[in-house]
Amino acid sequence: VQQYEIAVLPGDGIGNEVVPEALRVLDVVSAKYGFEVGYRHFDWSCQTYLSTGAMMPDDGLDRLRDHHAILLGAVGWPGVPDHLSLWGLLLPIRRAFDQYVNLRPVRLLPGVTPPVRDKQPGDIDFWVVRENTEGEYSQLGGRQGEGTETELVLQTAAFTRRGTDRIMRYAFELARDLDKPHVTSATKSNGIFHSMPYWDERFAAISAEYPDVRVDQDHIDILCARFVMSPERFDVVVASNLFGDILSDLGPGVTGTIGVAPSGNINPERIYPSTFEPVHGSAPDIAGRGVANPVGQIWSAAMMLDHLGQPEAATDVVRAIEQVLGDQSAPRTPDLGGGAGTEDLGKAIADAL
Amino acid sequence: VQQYEIAVLPGDGIGNEVVPEALRVLDVVSAKYGFEVGYRHFDWSCQTYLSTGAMMPDDGLDRLRDHHAILLGAVGWPGVPDHLSLWGLLLPIRRAFDQYVNLRPVRLLPGVTPPVRDKQPGDIDFWVVRENTEGEYSQLGGRQGEGTETELVLQTAAFTRRGTDRIMRYAFELARDLDKPHVTSATKSNGIFHSMPYWDERFAAISAEYPDVRVDQDHIDILCARFVMSPERFDVVVASNLFGDILSDLGPGVTGTIGVAPSGNINPERIYPSTFEPVHGSAPDIAGRGVANPVGQIWSAAMMLDHLGQPEAATDVVRAIEQVLGDQSAPRTPDLGGGAGTEDLGKAIADAL
Ligand SMILES: CC(C)[C@H](C(=O)O)[C@@H](O)C(=O)O
Ligand SMILES: CC(C)[C@H](C(=O)O)[C@@H](O)C(=O)O
Repeated sequence: VQQYEIAVLPGDGIGNEVVPEALRVLDVVSAKYGFEVGYRHFDWSCQTYLSTGAMMPDDGLDRLRDHHAILLGAVGWPGVPDHLSLWGLLLPIRRAFDQYVNLRPVRLLPGVTPPVRDKQPGDIDFWVVRENTEGEYSQLGGRQGEGTETELVLQTAAFTRRGTDRIMRYAFELARDLDKPHVTSATKSNGIFHSMPYWDERFAAISAEYPDVRVDQDHIDILCARFVMSPERFDVVVASNLFGDILSDLGPGVTGTIGVAPSGNINPERIYPSTFEPVHGSAPDIAGRGVANPVGQIWSAAMMLDHLGQPEAATDVVRAIEQVLGDQSAPRTPDLGGGAGTEDLGKAIADAL
Repeated sequence: VQQYEIAVLPGDGIGNEVVPEALRVLDVVSAKYGFEVGYRHFDWSCQTYLSTGAMMPDDGLDRLRDHHAILLGAVGWPGVPDHLSLWGLLLPIRRAFDQYVNLRPVRLLPGVTPPVRDKQPGDIDFWVVRENTEGEYSQLGGRQGEGTETELVLQTAAFTRRGTDRIMRYAFELARDLDKPHVTSATKSNGIFHSMPYWDERFAAISAEYPDVRVDQDHIDILCARFVMSPERFDVVVASNLFGDILSDLGPGVTGTIGVAPSGNINPERIYPSTFEPVHGSAPDIAGRGVANPVGQIWSAAMMLDHLGQPEAATDVVRAIEQVLGDQSAPRTPDLGGGAGTEDLGKAIADAL
């Protein structure tokens, strides 16, 4: 039997509540499809930071390396500045393991009422492909004149040919496999003087390699407006690290699925483990009450199965999620307008398998 | 009588069609309120660029300087790369005249069906206050290894204490005058390592000067999602140049008013002229057909009147716009679902005054 070793990092807050539900579902679906999933648990979190001064041990990355994938809950907690917790755990993992693709589906789900009007499941169904290792997320820069009236802070974004080309190629390859081979580039070449004209240049160059794929591009300001006004026009959207971050929250915002959206931080060459995590955060406001919606975590586990080479199991998990969400008599957590708990919803999805 | 000299720059495309309607309305409202508006026309545009190699003459900025305000249509045309047209005209004006505030209303209007459900006029009514002279819009940076596999492009954003503090103070002063003194800061301090933690630091410092104003902050990704999911929660949103650009298109996208939204590029100290322009662009797809909606340009003229010290006239113009838009029997341009032309709608608004 095929065996997978998964590093499990629940992290902070509701991460600890939703991760067990994903493992529950993984146990059921692996038995059904005849493979085995083993877990190694890591309790690195903001608590670790508060007691040790670091989010993970010095050899943390080495200890994660020899897993088939990483399943992550959420990172961040009041009392630890976000840029310390994230640059201490989440972002180093993305970079050390060259997870240069951040992949997020934007999909209208049955049983979820979106904030936009007149849309049905099927109308909105696309992917945001976000560059995940360079660009605007950078530690390049610094401060001059600290504490004075002439204080100046510089922040430098870095775009490499290699980094730009490979994320675009990933987007085109993904688009090719879809019903509608169509890629939209998120740019801002009218305002961001150096990096975004370069982004456009590479988009033109790479799109020439894929004459079968329809392309267009929008500046990020109007693109965000179009996500709301005409989300049905998108199939694959490729974006820089920052723009992709924005679009992959906005998209689920439009479909009403921000609490249940998944993401993959993917190393497509499979040289390093990829990380799968829900889009939502650690939600300190509801943490500890057992009412968090586990669907984002479970859907992330489904994306992980797909990446591991178990596409049928992955599709089955997504089907089970859609079945339970679409069934008004199934348990619903408070964010979905019901009174059920995290476990109830997790069990219902496991049962649907 | 009070006299105002306005520099009028229709620019490209539909700018040439909607600006005359704004002047029509200005003529009517100035007569009604007993002041005079004189116009000096400048035909600088992408055509100028194509024939002279520059968007404006060398002494262009000097020729604009001695006006009370600038009324601008739209800049940009196919064949001239956006970053050249905009950095050749629009952006130098913003900077040379220290128009450090970009102010844009987000308001649900009568007669306009927004893409979001269950919202009525009055539910969504807030301001985006965007820093307009520094930050991510910068010419700092460049390229190394051009044309090679190791090509690298750097783009540096610059945040100064002075620039950051003054835009925040403007937002707080604006909020103080509103029913609900409430400012939301757009940040991304969890991902953008140097500049955004600094932004938060200054927001904390400046908000301490305004204990009467309620404050909160959101990372730009979730903030964009909240613009769609709960736009009624906002009153004043303060943002950096790039984030403000995104939010001030997304906001009108949510209210269905992207074709009619106005903006002011304001030098609050009135040392230099301020520029007023619609949010929409030059719209090459419909230019020359006389069907562009002139409301954004007319509303921009209303913001100009307010800035010039004619708040009653300004309010009256906005009232006339709302009256005409809310009247189903009034002329409606194609974007509003009707068959009327630019002039018809402009005249209807002038008549309503
Ligand atoms: C045209 C472009 C440079 C400009 C900007 O990004 O500032 C526009 O989007 C705006 O918001 O006025
Ligand atoms: C938490 C934060 C650093 C992170 C990001 O911006 O990448 C998050 O928003 C995400 O999208 O995974």
